[in-house]
Amino acid sequence: MYNLLKGKKGLIFGALNDKSLAWKVAERAFEEGAELVLTNTPVSLRFGTIDELAAKTNSIVVPADATNEKDLEQLIQKTMEHFGGKFDFILHSVAMSMNVRKGLKYDEVNYAYLQKTIDISAVSFHKVLQTAKKLDAINEWGSVIALSYVAAQRTLYGYNDMADAKAMLESIARSFGYIYGREKKIRVNTISQSPTLTTAGSGVKGIDGLMDFTDRMSPLGNASADEFADYCITLFSDLTKKVTMQNLFHDGGFSSMGMSLRAMNQYNQSLDNPIPAEDLI
Amino acid sequence: MYNLLKGKKGLIFGALNDKSLAWKVAERAFEEGAELVLTNTPVSLRFGTIDELAAKTNSIVVPADATNEKDLEQLIQKTMEHFGGKFDFILHSVAMSMNVRKGLKYDEVNYAYLQKTIDISAVSFHKVLQTAKKLDAINEWGSVIALSYVAAQRTLYGYNDMADAKAMLESIARSFGYIYGREKKIRVNTISQSPTLTTAGSGVKGIDGLMDFTDRMSPLGNASADEFADYCITLFSDLTKKVTMQNLFHDGGFSSMGMSLRAMNQYNQSLDNPIPAEDLI
Amino acid sequence: MYNLLKGKKGLIFGALNDKSLAWKVAERAFEEGAELVLTNTPVSLRFGTIDELAAKTNSIVVPADATNEKDLEQLIQKTMEHFGGKFDFILHSVAMSMNVRKGLKYDEVNYAYLQKTIDISAVSFHKVLQTAKKLDAINEWGSVIALSYVAAQRTLYGYNDMADAKAMLESIARSFGYIYGREKKIRVNTISQSPTLTTAGSGVKGIDGLMDFTDRMSPLGNASADEFADYCITLFSDLTKKVTMQNLFHDGGFSSMGMSLRAMNQYNQSLDNPIPAEDLI
Amino acid sequence: MYNLLKGKKGLIFGALNDKSLAWKVAERAFEEGAELVLTNTPVSLRFGTIDELAAKTNSIVVPADATNEKDLEQLIQKTMEHFGGKFDFILHSVAMSMNVRKGLKYDEVNYAYLQKTIDISAVSFHKVLQTAKKLDAINEWGSVIALSYVAAQRTLYGYNDMADAKAMLESIARSFGYIYGREKKIRVNTISQSPTLTTAGSGVKGIDGLMDFTDRMSPLGNASADEFADYCITLFSDLTKKVTMQNLFHDGGFSSMGMSLRAMNQYNQSLDNPIPAEDLI
Repeated sequence: MYNLLKGKKGLIFGALNDKSLAWKVAERAFEEGAELVLTNTPVSLRFGTIDELAAKTNSIVVPADATNEKDLEQLIQKTMEHFGGKFDFILHSVAMSMNVRKGLKYDEVNYAYLQKTIDISAVSFHKVLQTAKKLDAINEWGSVIALSYVAAQRTLYGYNDMADAKAMLESIARSFGYIYGREKKIRVNTISQSPTLTTAGSGVKGIDGLMDFTDRMSPLGNASADEFADYCITLFSDLTKKVTMQNLFHDGGFSSMGMSLRAMNQYNQSLDNPIPAEDLI
Repeated sequence: MYNLLKGKKGLIFGALNDKSLAWKVAERAFEEGAELVLTNTPVSLRFGTIDELAAKTNSIVVPADATNEKDLEQLIQKTMEHFGGKFDFILHSVAMSMNVRKGLKYDEVNYAYLQKTIDISAVSFHKVLQTAKKLDAINEWGSVIALSYVAAQRTLYGYNDMADAKAMLESIARSFGYIYGREKKIRVNTISQSPTLTTAGSGVKGIDGLMDFTDRMSPLGNASADEFADYCITLFSDLTKKVTMQNLFHDGGFSSMGMSLRAMNQYNQSLDNPIPAEDLI
Repeated sequence: MYNLLKGKKGLIFGALNDKSLAWKVAERAFEEGAELVLTNTPVSLRFGTIDELAAKTNSIVVPADATNEKDLEQLIQKTMEHFGGKFDFILHSVAMSMNVRKGLKYDEVNYAYLQKTIDISAVSFHKVLQTAKKLDAINEWGSVIALSYVAAQRTLYGYNDMADAKAMLESIARSFGYIYGREKKIRVNTISQSPTLTTAGSGVKGIDGLMDFTDRMSPLGNASADEFADYCITLFSDLTKKVTMQNLFHDGGFSSMGMSLRAMNQYNQSLDNPIPAEDLI
Repeated sequence: MYNLLKGKKGLIFGALNDKSLAWKVAERAFEEGAELVLTNTPVSLRFGTIDELAAKTNSIVVPADATNEKDLEQLIQKTMEHFGGKFDFILHSVAMSMNVRKGLKYDEVNYAYLQKTIDISAVSFHKVLQTAKKLDAINEWGSVIALSYVAAQRTLYGYNDMADAKAMLESIARSFGYIYGREKKIRVNTISQSPTLTTAGSGVKGIDGLMDFTDRMSPLGNASADEFADYCITLFSDLTKKVTMQNLFHDGGFSSMGMSLRAMNQYNQSLDNPIPAEDLI
């Protein structure tokens, strides 16, 4: 609508289907004038509907496992070939926890799964950045964003080892943001988004109650996937060149709330029927 | 019990009655071997029962308005006379908001009241520090603590202009902690305590529901006034000499929680009966 | 350039001359299609060159003292008259400390000056918000920004009582952001900008050395006033609707740095000639 | 000296030699009345002088690789056998980065090394906690501390992948602290200590210049290993029962500083001889 990304080229990880945050970002980036390359794991490509997105956004799809350095090297090389040179932005929206999927509690995690969580959800971001830098793939004043969540900073039951992965992800954004900034003028940030009913989000236990709570806590309500996409556009644009190494909350205010009247009133409804502490953990 | 404060001398602001945090601190400091001077405003002295505390802790009471520089100067001079020289620690537990008392909402505050809130609840801390430093009243490696609340960093409905005062208070602890540290080796910190049913706390609207919520959110439950006193003892002792310019959460874990299972289960009880957003703000 | 603010109307506080952050914001907002009203104190209007800016941006100037509720009421009424109704955004760039100007140290502040610092630099923001809300002056999904500085969160020598004012300012953004968000869908944020050589900034003692240091610490270098204006545009636009109650660092990465190689190398140059601790505070 | 840990039993990871933070903690804990079990890897046991510490503190040494679940299980079982039951506190001071040791830059890390960094420096902490909980090894109101560093939150050049490990470590303290708190009333915290000239610390490139800088930045100067030990004692004691899920800065104020006069004056010495940006990264 504004041509904010006119002439810019970007690589987008993690669009599975039209509920995905990455999907919305791709649509909006295309609307704003960007050319795109889309990527996801081979499994996700089969399971999802990314070809539809590629058609819509006039982009190509390159399969890659974001934990595999060789795959990433090929991905970025193909991306550069497709664009005829360097590109301008990356969205990293990649996360998975087998401990969450298998319902293992945080004090009974499987450490092979934990390692996979970290590898997929945090280290993959480092690998993307290291590979891009090695191949000198991103133009000066380029912008890289990864998707985070408030659990990186405050504990939410059930989010499990993903919280630790997101904490590490935010650290990688700072650590690599320093290097990539000083050497190539490229900014690296994370966005900490409201809980969102993506395919991944839907898998989190008790997500409905949690989303009701966060919505009542947030003065502007939960942020939607469309709004997330809008926000990403600003951070890929030339208008935010000096924002780097930040974790940016996009959550209707939730992160800065201790208790809202709306959530408290709702909570108070329950107090006629208090659950004894002994019954619960 | 441990003689942690043996030989130490301290000045304690804000003990009204035996529910006061400052009262508990005085009792525990005395148990740990400290000599004390107690102070409060003339009005609070009449309204409360501080003489009982003075008798128990073998200390004197010096009336002072903490917003009045002259009063503070006399207070600190008398304290030094009583002790025969410099002393070692100060507790500042002083706060008041007429906007809260009068039930004025945060978007309809009276600015004369707001100024009073800031003056009493934040600037008074600066005045105490500036006066103490001017009179060279505190020994090297002394320790100063002021009472804060998580509302300084995250918004809780109803806490009103006190949130802004506490934010400023925490800033004063940093700003003055820098000066007092570099010049006199004195540390300055704030403790951010769980909501507590003191006389002041009881006046906060909806405190019961809030305390139920924070208790269920905090893995160790709300921190009590007795536990607050224990924590203060460690921070007045010689074992924490290099902790300064910090806001220290003493809250059973609340500040690091996004959502606990216990609070969520309780909240979910209410969802059979959701309050429409339109009905509420 | 992008028409990001096409159809939007805004009120801008604090443009003194063409070095002012607010001046740059006005220019950029105009370029992006916004209509503007400019305001400053009568003294600043005489001292500065705001009429030039008004001419450039086809806007009117309304004098107002931001600490005076009556003035603010008239200002907002006139602004609404000028626009023929509600408007969409506000920039608050207002700060002053007599303690800084007079060279009074932070442990020797004049409390009448301190009150003025708080009144001008923090409370004025509350007054602007309260007046705007009372007059229902801002459209739904409007955006309000105030200018902050990292000193609100970390102590920088010489910044004095302005640090405490900025801490309070950031708290007001949260506290009022909660209310204004839940009731009117209006977002309120602060931007924490790199030190900038505005007329105000130039007055800060030792600003040159500090700016050299922050520039070497920040992987992307200090953010300029022009870049600040760009960033404001995104936050006034419809693309950031769910960002609220945040303090957003716009500083080339400084806030997330502990030590850069570039600053350390520079610092190390000095270590052949270490200054003894005794000589200095 | 105070009998603060009289009757308490603890397990201490990571004492290598008398420069180690863990060594100092063991000595102080013993002085305060605690009984101890010491542990380190077989290699560290050979390389260091832990037997001397065991003799001094009347404790036993149990070798264990903290990344190995079986080892940890045996360690904790032997510890419980030695103590005749549950114990009260744990210190985790375990960290290693092959990327740092080998001088690989953060944008050229070896990912096998990175995984080892995370495994040793962060996941080992989870394994200790999970094993202790499974074996129900810690008494109610027990206390667990891990050693962190400000690099977890702000980037320091050269700290490399250890920064990401420490960020994850702090997250594990929150995540597990929630579980261990709600179920067993056990608190889990990290201490973020000043840079310290331990054997590990000495290996960090440019540590001398950095320590000069942090010392001049910190109003109370860098915190020593002895002071670290004192602080740990308070956090193991019964006086801090409601402090959990926190990262506690023990750094003379460094973490809350933006710029001190002392560091700035020193830095300014170097500005006669500015290093051009082009020469350096």
